[in-house]
Amino acid sequence: MEQHKIIEAMRELAGAANVVDAADDMAPHLIDWRKRHSGTAACVVFPRGVEQVSKVLAYCNANAIKVFPQGGNTSVCGGSVPDGNGNSILLNLGKMNRILEINANDNSMTVEAGCILADLQQAALEADRMFPLTLGAEGSCQIGGNIATNAGGTNVVRFGNTRDLVLGLQAVLPDGKVWNGLRTLRKNNSGYDLKNLFIGSEGTLGVVTAASLKLFPKPRALATAVLGFVTVDQAVQVGLTLQSAFPGELVGLELISKSEFEISLRHAAKARNPFQQTPEWMVLVELAASTGTSEALTERLTIALEQPLETGAIVDAVIASSEQQRAELWNIRHSVTEANGREGMGLTHDIAVPTYRIPDFVRQAGAALAEHYPQAVPVIVGHMGDGNLHYIAMFTHEFWAQVPDKMRMQSELSHLLYDIAAAMGGTFSAEHGIGSLHVEEMSLYKDAQELAMMRQMKDLLDPNDTMNPGRVLPPVSDA
Amino acid sequence: MEQHKIIEAMRELAGAANVVDAADDMAPHLIDWRKRHSGTAACVVFPRGVEQVSKVLAYCNANAIKVFPQGGNTSVCGGSVPDGNGNSILLNLGKMNRILEINANDNSMTVEAGCILADLQQAALEADRMFPLTLGAEGSCQIGGNIATNAGGTNVVRFGNTRDLVLGLQAVLPDGKVWNGLRTLRKNNSGYDLKNLFIGSEGTLGVVTAASLKLFPKPRALATAVLGFVTVDQAVQVGLTLQSAFPGELVGLELISKSEFEISLRHAAKARNPFQQTPEWMVLVELAASTGTSEALTERLTIALEQPLETGAIVDAVIASSEQQRAELWNIRHSVTEANGREGMGLTHDIAVPTYRIPDFVRQAGAALAEHYPQAVPVIVGHMGDGNLHYIAMFTHEFWAQVPDKMRMQSELSHLLYDIAAAMGGTFSAEHGIGSLHVEEMSLYKDAQELAMMRQMKDLLDPNDTMNPGRVLPPVSDA
Repeated sequence: MEQHKIIEAMRELAGAANVVDAADDMAPHLIDWRKRHSGTAACVVFPRGVEQVSKVLAYCNANAIKVFPQGGNTSVCGGSVPDGNGNSILLNLGKMNRILEINANDNSMTVEAGCILADLQQAALEADRMFPLTLGAEGSCQIGGNIATNAGGTNVVRFGNTRDLVLGLQAVLPDGKVWNGLRTLRKNNSGYDLKNLFIGSEGTLGVVTAASLKLFPKPRALATAVLGFVTVDQAVQVGLTLQSAFPGELVGLELISKSEFEISLRHAAKARNPFQQTPEWMVLVELAASTGTSEALTERLTIALEQPLETGAIVDAVIASSEQQRAELWNIRHSVTEANGREGMGLTHDIAVPTYRIPDFVRQAGAALAEHYPQAVPVIVGHMGDGNLHYIAMFTHEFWAQVPDKMRMQSELSHLLYDIAAAMGGTFSAEHGIGSLHVEEMSLYKDAQELAMMRQMKDLLDPNDTMNPGRVLPPVSDA
Repeated sequence: MEQHKIIEAMRELAGAANVVDAADDMAPHLIDWRKRHSGTAACVVFPRGVEQVSKVLAYCNANAIKVFPQGGNTSVCGGSVPDGNGNSILLNLGKMNRILEINANDNSMTVEAGCILADLQQAALEADRMFPLTLGAEGSCQIGGNIATNAGGTNVVRFGNTRDLVLGLQAVLPDGKVWNGLRTLRKNNSGYDLKNLFIGSEGTLGVVTAASLKLFPKPRALATAVLGFVTVDQAVQVGLTLQSAFPGELVGLELISKSEFEISLRHAAKARNPFQQTPEWMVLVELAASTGTSEALTERLTIALEQPLETGAIVDAVIASSEQQRAELWNIRHSVTEANGREGMGLTHDIAVPTYRIPDFVRQAGAALAEHYPQAVPVIVGHMGDGNLHYIAMFTHEFWAQVPDKMRMQSELSHLLYDIAAAMGGTFSAEHGIGSLHVEEMSLYKDAQELAMMRQMKDLLDPNDTMNPGRVLPPVSDA
């Protein structure tokens, strides 16, 4: 269908005020925030409710118009911008951003897909509860996108991925049918689990329009420390020991390499090195509890650290003694993405392996880089408790500018690392998802039977390939 | 196909030693443990490995032979015995009972479907870890059945349902294809979530043959108490307060009515009333921690109970001061199923509502029973922290013997209670599943769009209706 006809139809279905087609107004929605992926569309549609989403999808599905759903446009995998076809629509959920219910007694809230994550965190706090999902993009990402991509972040070690925080879903299927699965029950064994099929399917099976989410008691006490290590083996060993000691309290366990720590200190505003001498490896650890005081919790953490400090497994430790010091420690961690961008050209890999295999991965990956890409500096930061490393091969901008075939080098370097993770039962995409960036890896690394089943699900729920085409699943010929 | 031909084929595919067709040998597998559901089959097949399961399913699927999978045969919904057709096979997984790997460093174990739950709990303890799934049938139920039914139990308040404990699955599809999704990663956002479709699908989409499961640190400290209340409102209010205070430590929060408590004391071996005067409502609470001592944890629990004891919200409390006393308190709780069976004819309802609605449910259900079934005594025990009540309408055997149309009365009484739960956003099956018993309720209480999607999934993965026919999904004409 021609673009002007698509725009007319969308104005009819969603209201003229909710359809944007001027190039300037569309521009920020057509390119991702890292400026690595871009596309075009006939228009951007901002539906105001589930009925409008239903009408738009039914129309598009019947008229061979592709639909690209978008939340806060914070994907790092090219999952939130359209492709280059142009005769498609971008469906932005940002104006469906109401909190429908927040119920502290039920430890739940029911919200529309376009709510910004930080707003939900704040709303939970105001109800004397906590919504534990927390990640770098929380100020702009939307809960619908978090659900579509099963977002992770720094609290997963205690509260799980987004999948584990969703009690119920409302979704619109590609043909416009609405599934109202909003409910807050903790137990419901009446039939197949449908919600988990939508969670993490990245908008390829339908559009999540609302969700019921778990809330948790607000933490009353926090204990935060950054620990220094000579070897990554010691870092992981102490990390596993802390996980065993504090299964209910350990809410953060982040691994940071010296290279990453120094990059963050170099570029982050107000960053201050808490160490006299920066260790080779650092672990940022945080405990939280809903009874007792931060002093008492910090005392318990300090006692647990005594033995590894005595044996020398930990070479240095900085325990936060105030909220300000705690914020400073986390600031170093939270600043890495921006700092890495300023440092050079970092090729990021979002791998996961079983936690205890992290030292093996780091050694093998380091050796592979040293052999094949000696110009790369390994920069490592990650959610150690989940076995999830962001493993970055950092090049100088000067070197990168001179690489003749950047795409090819990036692909070859990545596959070198993904092969190492795969051999350990690991994955090439732990929390960032597939988007358009990792479709090739789906063909290379996923089990053929699993891919075939995914394709069956896609063909069943979206036989016209209306929803987010070209994302997640390899083209049929590859599968 | 005639029975003798089915038996011959199965001997060929699974080995003669693994096929049982003598009536006496088959008998225990053809009736459930409560003697309420029974069926017939050409033979019982005990496969020894995934390849045999694959061959058996492929053959049955191609030859219109229905397959009824069975674990420990502990279903309370008629989900574990075949129907009355007879020209079918019962596929018992009990001889696939190897622990394939147990890895304390990875906090995981990978096991075959036929492992008995209690054996897995024990194996975890021996590896200095805990597998938290715990329920009445743990001495005979199998993990494959737990996964197929998404089993619950008393630890759900802290560790979730079986669904939350599964990291990876191996399953055989109805056509014999094997999906090997065994993996232990905590994060893996590479494509659709397939495992949750099989978990809780009660063997209607395929056969779970192995699973990778989460392990947790072994608790080092326990604090257990039983609290007495005058009203169920106070019981729930104090329960919610404890959930807010101890989100990481609260591992049990069981509600017991006076009627249930007295039945258990009357029939359970060695049961002793810990109260001078039995309160109207009781809550069994347990905290667990992996650092510190039981004495310190009990002290923390005691402090948390001070205020509700002072205000009179709690009228009596017994805090376990030894492992023996703790076992005695749990013994009263664990004895209820058997005790109820001795007491009379109990019509059990496995409902869930949002936890804070429990008092409303209890009041409305009690009033409905009093009006329509004045002979029934409400007997209530349940997993309060999950909003899950086993609400039992208890009749004397004498009364029940004289009910003319037992099926009709049971159905009408149940729907009276299910209607009340449904109006509160609740469910008629919280943790027991559907089996053959609750298929009618699926038509009555489930959203039509959700049922249609379930039917689509079933038709996609099992187009010949080979697997566990007649279970979970209503017949096509009803849907």
